[in-house]
Amino acid sequence: MSSPAESAIATYESDRDAALQRVKDLLAIPTVSTDPAFAEDMQRGADWCANRLREIGFDATVHGTDKHPIVTAEAGPTDGPTVLYYGHYDVQPADPLELWHSSPFDPQVVQGPHGDRIVARGAVDDKGQLMTFIEAFAAWQATHGGFPIRVKVILEGEEECGSPSLPGFLDQEKELLAADTCVVCDTGMWDVNTPAITTSLRGLVYIQVRLHGPGSDLHSGMFGGTVPNPAMLLSKVIAQLHDDNLRVAVPGFYDGIRPPDQDRIDSWYALGFDDKAFLATAGLDTDLGEKGTRVLERIWSRPTVEVNGLCAGYTGEGAKTVIGAHATAKISCRLIAGQNAENVRDALKQFFLDRTPKGCRWEITEFGAEDAFEVDGDSPWLAAAQEGLQAQFGKPAAMVGSGGSIPVCGLIREHLGFESLLVGFGLDDDGTHAPNEKFERVCFDNGVKSHLRMLESFARVTA
Amino acid sequence: MSSPAESAIATYESDRDAALQRVKDLLAIPTVSTDPAFAEDMQRGADWCANRLREIGFDATVHGTDKHPIVTAEAGPTDGPTVLYYGHYDVQPADPLELWHSSPFDPQVVQGPHGDRIVARGAVDDKGQLMTFIEAFAAWQATHGGFPIRVKVILEGEEECGSPSLPGFLDQEKELLAADTCVVCDTGMWDVNTPAITTSLRGLVYIQVRLHGPGSDLHSGMFGGTVPNPAMLLSKVIAQLHDDNLRVAVPGFYDGIRPPDQDRIDSWYALGFDDKAFLATAGLDTDLGEKGTRVLERIWSRPTVEVNGLCAGYTGEGAKTVIGAHATAKISCRLIAGQNAENVRDALKQFFLDRTPKGCRWEITEFGAEDAFEVDGDSPWLAAAQEGLQAQFGKPAAMVGSGGSIPVCGLIREHLGFESLLVGFGLDDDGTHAPNEKFERVCFDNGVKSHLRMLESFARVTA
Repeated sequence: MSSPAESAIATYESDRDAALQRVKDLLAIPTVSTDPAFAEDMQRGADWCANRLREIGFDATVHGTDKHPIVTAEAGPTDGPTVLYYGHYDVQPADPLELWHSSPFDPQVVQGPHGDRIVARGAVDDKGQLMTFIEAFAAWQATHGGFPIRVKVILEGEEECGSPSLPGFLDQEKELLAADTCVVCDTGMWDVNTPAITTSLRGLVYIQVRLHGPGSDLHSGMFGGTVPNPAMLLSKVIAQLHDDNLRVAVPGFYDGIRPPDQDRIDSWYALGFDDKAFLATAGLDTDLGEKGTRVLERIWSRPTVEVNGLCAGYTGEGAKTVIGAHATAKISCRLIAGQNAENVRDALKQFFLDRTPKGCRWEITEFGAEDAFEVDGDSPWLAAAQEGLQAQFGKPAAMVGSGGSIPVCGLIREHLGFESLLVGFGLDDDGTHAPNEKFERVCFDNGVKSHLRMLESFARVTA
Repeated sequence: MSSPAESAIATYESDRDAALQRVKDLLAIPTVSTDPAFAEDMQRGADWCANRLREIGFDATVHGTDKHPIVTAEAGPTDGPTVLYYGHYDVQPADPLELWHSSPFDPQVVQGPHGDRIVARGAVDDKGQLMTFIEAFAAWQATHGGFPIRVKVILEGEEECGSPSLPGFLDQEKELLAADTCVVCDTGMWDVNTPAITTSLRGLVYIQVRLHGPGSDLHSGMFGGTVPNPAMLLSKVIAQLHDDNLRVAVPGFYDGIRPPDQDRIDSWYALGFDDKAFLATAGLDTDLGEKGTRVLERIWSRPTVEVNGLCAGYTGEGAKTVIGAHATAKISCRLIAGQNAENVRDALKQFFLDRTPKGCRWEITEFGAEDAFEVDGDSPWLAAAQEGLQAQFGKPAAMVGSGGSIPVCGLIREHLGFESLLVGFGLDDDGTHAPNEKFERVCFDNGVKSHLRMLESFARVTA
């Protein structure tokens, strides 16, 4: 006799192509949250998600915010455990467009080594992933006519631009969102056959620094050599962000850090991490990072400073002999446990202010600051998730770190008072934030089925 | 009784408003040579110039090249002196467009401290300036029905992108362009009341360096801290271009330089150069340059390296946590007498190659290399030009240097075998290459009249 999850899995199997079409429908909406030009598409994306949740028996609401809407929904009995599911329907900008093999918002299914893959901006981050739990709910509902636990959903539209509306919303909707735990579906698997639960996430600080020099763009022949050149002077400051060992040289940056011990780092490598294969997914045959640390250690457990963008002077085709009036850098830090994001942001800003070139001034813009996050290893919800994943994959889930930042975990702990479980189905080579982002269809299928099995396990937890 | 020049000046005075309209007509054609999108406008610009020259009695030809057309024209007696006039009808790109108070190709006449000024891209560099000699020819022709010497004209369309077609054209059209001297009208006055002849020009080397790292744009959370970040690594190399005294640190860069002696530098300052006023035209209240040198000395007689553009990763609105696959800088050097442009270019390229970061490679593009230029002080043509300017302004022309580069002087010497005279009517605050570029109408008028008086003086030179 099949279990409730297995029956629902059979339902999903019979509806698999329609599910894929629904994923493509959502991916076709260009929900770029960081660019004001896409504001209407953001609304369409939120409405699409709410309507789909209503179709499968949820009571769903689209909440306006100062920026992009937040979707909430709930269904199932009110007298047992409650699990909140989190995803984000916004995506990164698609540029550089010329490097895409197909239009980023015209989802394509193409063949890869693991069979079908879905190619589109947001395929894996995060619209494809949030559809794994929505399709799981659809299959469970169609099979059993109801849910074994109270299921709540929150889908935000500002994850890729620092979640400015989320803290206030969580604070205001404590009751609506009350739950025993939150399943955050925005992370990766160990490999295509091995599920993973992410137990640590790096935090994030993001600022933009613009160095202003001359009052307007100048002719480099008429003024070159005798006036401050912001492009060169900004480069000089950026060059000081790291020392010769590629350690971050911002004073106070490492204050309070709690790096993992060597045993934990060794345990990650014991999973079979292959530096060369990982670098190959980035088109590289060599690493470059902090002296005395290893590739995986760096991305899971070392804080960083990276330049994400540079712009100054003339950037078009050909030559222009200009000295630009200003130069801009976008700079982000990844943080680990023990660092205080606001302190790091202040230290980074001070680093630039302390190096203001003669005749220049800085204009600094902040884009969010979140601490790193670590999961409680003793949670019964963690055990239930592990049980569900083991049932689906026939092997234990890897307990991994992640280099990325998912601010919602810290915000949920702070504002709603419960913990999160990071269970996702992406692969390292999915091209998150890059051209030709993809999501393996086998990962999508395993994601839907894993959510069904975890739902069954969650129903057995007595909180 | 008025002299031939004075009669022609009276003719010009009576046609002054129509002349202004013609200048505006030419400025309205967006002749941006560096951007392939404007190729048709370049052809229109060349045709406009040729047609205007035909209207005033010249035999004019538009010559096709691999890139943008070259206009030549001639008129006047073949049995006396011949003077070639040079200008360029191409302009710099107009961006950043948002800083213009009016559309760059919709010429406006606005009021300034010196009265009417013409605002448009190319107003002073160089379409407004080439119109000073064309309007002078028109007035002379209308007054006297012919010219006192053989007058030849060459107008190129690639000055702002390194003049790639000009050397071959000069070589091929030696006979067509044969003359006793060349008047290059693309420089400035000492001030609004004092004419100048530019006797030294800096040379120019321009390259673009692109540092390639990862095979595609990467998520900075997934890969940050362990892969080469081209934006940061490029900044590190740029930061090494100058030492702490802001001297250029490229090995071999200063080889062979012949800086002017202290007396000559002092003589420039004796003209009354005001560092503060000069810097104010750049919106600055402080200078920044090579230690132990002065503001004017630097721009007229010190070689430089400047960054003219930077571009890497995400440069749009807001935040994107990306590591760009590559980072690009546009870099130019100004050269002085004694430096060999090709050697400097090679040294600059080698500087980058010697600092190739681990896991990265450079893609270097060349955009021209010209030596600096010095004028022969004993030329009778120089004396004639001085005489004409003195007659117009009632005071001697200042003999000045220039920080800019006008490759045509070196090319004419090399390919045609005669010298050039640099006589122009721009002011330091004209905003050459910058938003809201302008040309004072009083300077335009004095330019036309000066050309008429120089024409009379040239006719008296017995070569």
